[in-house]
Amino acid sequence: MIKDIIQKKRLGYALEESEIKEAFLGYLEGSVADYQMSALLMAICINGMTDEEIFVLTDLFLNSGDVLDFSHIPGIKVDKHSTGGVGDKTTLIVVPIVASLSVPVIKMSGRALGYTGGTVDKLESIPGYQTELSADKIKKQVLEVGAVMMGQTAKLCPLDKKIYALRDVTGTTDSIALIAASIMSKKLAGGADKILIDVKVGKGAFMKTEKEAQLLADLMIKIGKKYGRETRVMISNMDRPLGRAVGNALEVKEALDVLQGKQQGSLRTLCVELATSMVSMGRQIPMDDAKVLVEESIDSLKAYHKLLEIIKYQEGDISGLAISKNVVSITSLKSGIVQDIDAKEVAHLAFSLGAGRITKEEKVDLSTGVYINVEIGQKVEEGDILCYLYTKENMTPSCDITKIFEIS
Amino acid sequence: MIKDIIQKKRLGYALEESEIKEAFLGYLEGSVADYQMSALLMAICINGMTDEEIFVLTDLFLNSGDVLDFSHIPGIKVDKHSTGGVGDKTTLIVVPIVASLSVPVIKMSGRALGYTGGTVDKLESIPGYQTELSADKIKKQVLEVGAVMMGQTAKLCPLDKKIYALRDVTGTTDSIALIAASIMSKKLAGGADKILIDVKVGKGAFMKTEKEAQLLADLMIKIGKKYGRETRVMISNMDRPLGRAVGNALEVKEALDVLQGKQQGSLRTLCVELATSMVSMGRQIPMDDAKVLVEESIDSLKAYHKLLEIIKYQEGDISGLAISKNVVSITSLKSGIVQDIDAKEVAHLAFSLGAGRITKEEKVDLSTGVYINVEIGQKVEEGDILCYLYTKENMTPSCDITKIFEIS
Repeated sequence: MIKDIIQKKRLGYALEESEIKEAFLGYLEGSVADYQMSALLMAICINGMTDEEIFVLTDLFLNSGDVLDFSHIPGIKVDKHSTGGVGDKTTLIVVPIVASLSVPVIKMSGRALGYTGGTVDKLESIPGYQTELSADKIKKQVLEVGAVMMGQTAKLCPLDKKIYALRDVTGTTDSIALIAASIMSKKLAGGADKILIDVKVGKGAFMKTEKEAQLLADLMIKIGKKYGRETRVMISNMDRPLGRAVGNALEVKEALDVLQGKQQGSLRTLCVELATSMVSMGRQIPMDDAKVLVEESIDSLKAYHKLLEIIKYQEGDISGLAISKNVVSITSLKSGIVQDIDAKEVAHLAFSLGAGRITKEEKVDLSTGVYINVEIGQKVEEGDILCYLYTKENMTPSCDITKIFEIS
Repeated sequence: MIKDIIQKKRLGYALEESEIKEAFLGYLEGSVADYQMSALLMAICINGMTDEEIFVLTDLFLNSGDVLDFSHIPGIKVDKHSTGGVGDKTTLIVVPIVASLSVPVIKMSGRALGYTGGTVDKLESIPGYQTELSADKIKKQVLEVGAVMMGQTAKLCPLDKKIYALRDVTGTTDSIALIAASIMSKKLAGGADKILIDVKVGKGAFMKTEKEAQLLADLMIKIGKKYGRETRVMISNMDRPLGRAVGNALEVKEALDVLQGKQQGSLRTLCVELATSMVSMGRQIPMDDAKVLVEESIDSLKAYHKLLEIIKYQEGDISGLAISKNVVSITSLKSGIVQDIDAKEVAHLAFSLGAGRITKEEKVDLSTGVYINVEIGQKVEEGDILCYLYTKENMTPSCDITKIFEIS
């Protein structure tokens, strides 16, 4: 009985496979009520799950929907996933690099709920860009271009989707067990041969500490192994926004800048690391060798042209990228050194400009966002521009700049 | 926001008064969903509550409905409550004893969900007995007879009622904080001046260990103090059924037996202790003096006649007490000493005969039940009668007698 299963987890015991099935499949079918599932999820959040329990849950998520098979497409297909952060446009940079080096990538992304848009929102800021592709189109494009960047089909892991929606409104998102099962089931269902996970840790991320991030990483590697899919995990910081742009079209522009060699710094460094790992996995070569190839791909503009090629193939018109013309400069109130830039506060600001959504129903304004004009450690004078706000027409934005930038 | 409140408790922090109000009053009003409340209740079950939090919650429960005031009825009114067990008919015995000693009692009881009926069910096995009384009738009866035994009005602590129903289906009943707030809010709303709580501990009770029972006791005493209502707690064992009868009319019959001096043993002993404590509180006399009065009341049949008086005043006809005529004797399969009688198994058996309900909708057969014919330590021969089953007409009961009686 579901009550007994909930109580068992409340007391901290591991559940049997049959009990996990009864609870979660019961929830999918409707015999277990949402208020029962949320109590169980809370008990899991607090008391955790064993590896065995997590394997069972991952399998239930995975097999609740379609499981894609791209084995008919030649090559070792490598997928990547980021646990998400502020200004995370790494997919737009990494996928073309990897594809330009003959490693096929079928990248399916989400439409994030949270303060800023997901990769699909970013892609849709390119006029005409198609984020929904049929299986035939995916195959054709991967063979001809080497990569697709698209939305996730609705049929992957519906149980995870239902559970996630409940976790989102019941304060039960922060469970390493549930996060690992959720991410890995979707990646496994996505059909890639090898998987790279970018786990974000810090103020602007789900994982607040290195230790938590490492636990999550270890768990996902174990799950990957269980299914015979090599899984690598990188842990990267998310105390500060990633790069300079936060907002959909603005982030596409920044991705182009990085691939054109116009922007150095931490975003480029992270993308090189991610791409290196994927190329190393896909081509089965050492990391050092892969890194040389990745740097060459950027420097020679091969990756840049690959991004343009992907966009064009998916019917996007990059020349029409719509960035708001209403720009407000925010200047520093004092002189000093930029000590910190708070990722969470930047996210709130971008959200206030219309660049994100909290509920599924909200509409994102893809043209708005924040562009940060300074770097950590940089000296600024009173009156220097700290950031630009790209706003909706006739909007006078308000922001407390002292909460975002720490200058002293 | 409710999500933040849930997460705070998930992480083990104490909630502010305003947060507890937002969550629980929000649930009462409907702005907090049941799946959110059940997640919060689970976090409370696992991470506990501070005394301050429990005081706030008790107050919310208490003030969510009517708060009765019997100060116009003279005398120190003493109420009792039992956390419930198998064969617990102490109310039927203790209330008339106490009333016979000039301590007024207004006893409101529940219709228990669980394996066996509550006190109201037991009272209703007496034909004609009125369990719903108006305020005027209560006052008149207390002045003339000294006690009422009735059902709880629907308007006491509706928030507790709503929360309890949710706890019942989400595996979140076993929380000392929630149990204390639930019991004490109802007793405080019931308007008594002093309160005696009988906390049951053991196999057949909510509390499984002495330690838990003591924590619960301490908490309830503190809550009582907070409201200026002296509260005493007795902790009594519930590994074995209380007395010999389990089933509604059968238990009324057993109460009469005890008050007629026909039955000695642990049930009588417990009732004497409970009554002694109540008389000591109500008359403000030492326990030893109170005990002498209690024993006298039983021995002189004063308490017995008081019970008959109460029943008659509430329009019950004790001569019509309907105990099933379909009796099956269960005999021992071997010879030996009765080592143990399992309370939970007896409850299941009584339930299978129709004496209890699991859901509110189920109808209880008040005439059925189990009557245990042996005592712990008693020597029995193969073929001796261990118990009698009082069944519905034409029912052939089945029971595994070896699970109930341990004989060796």
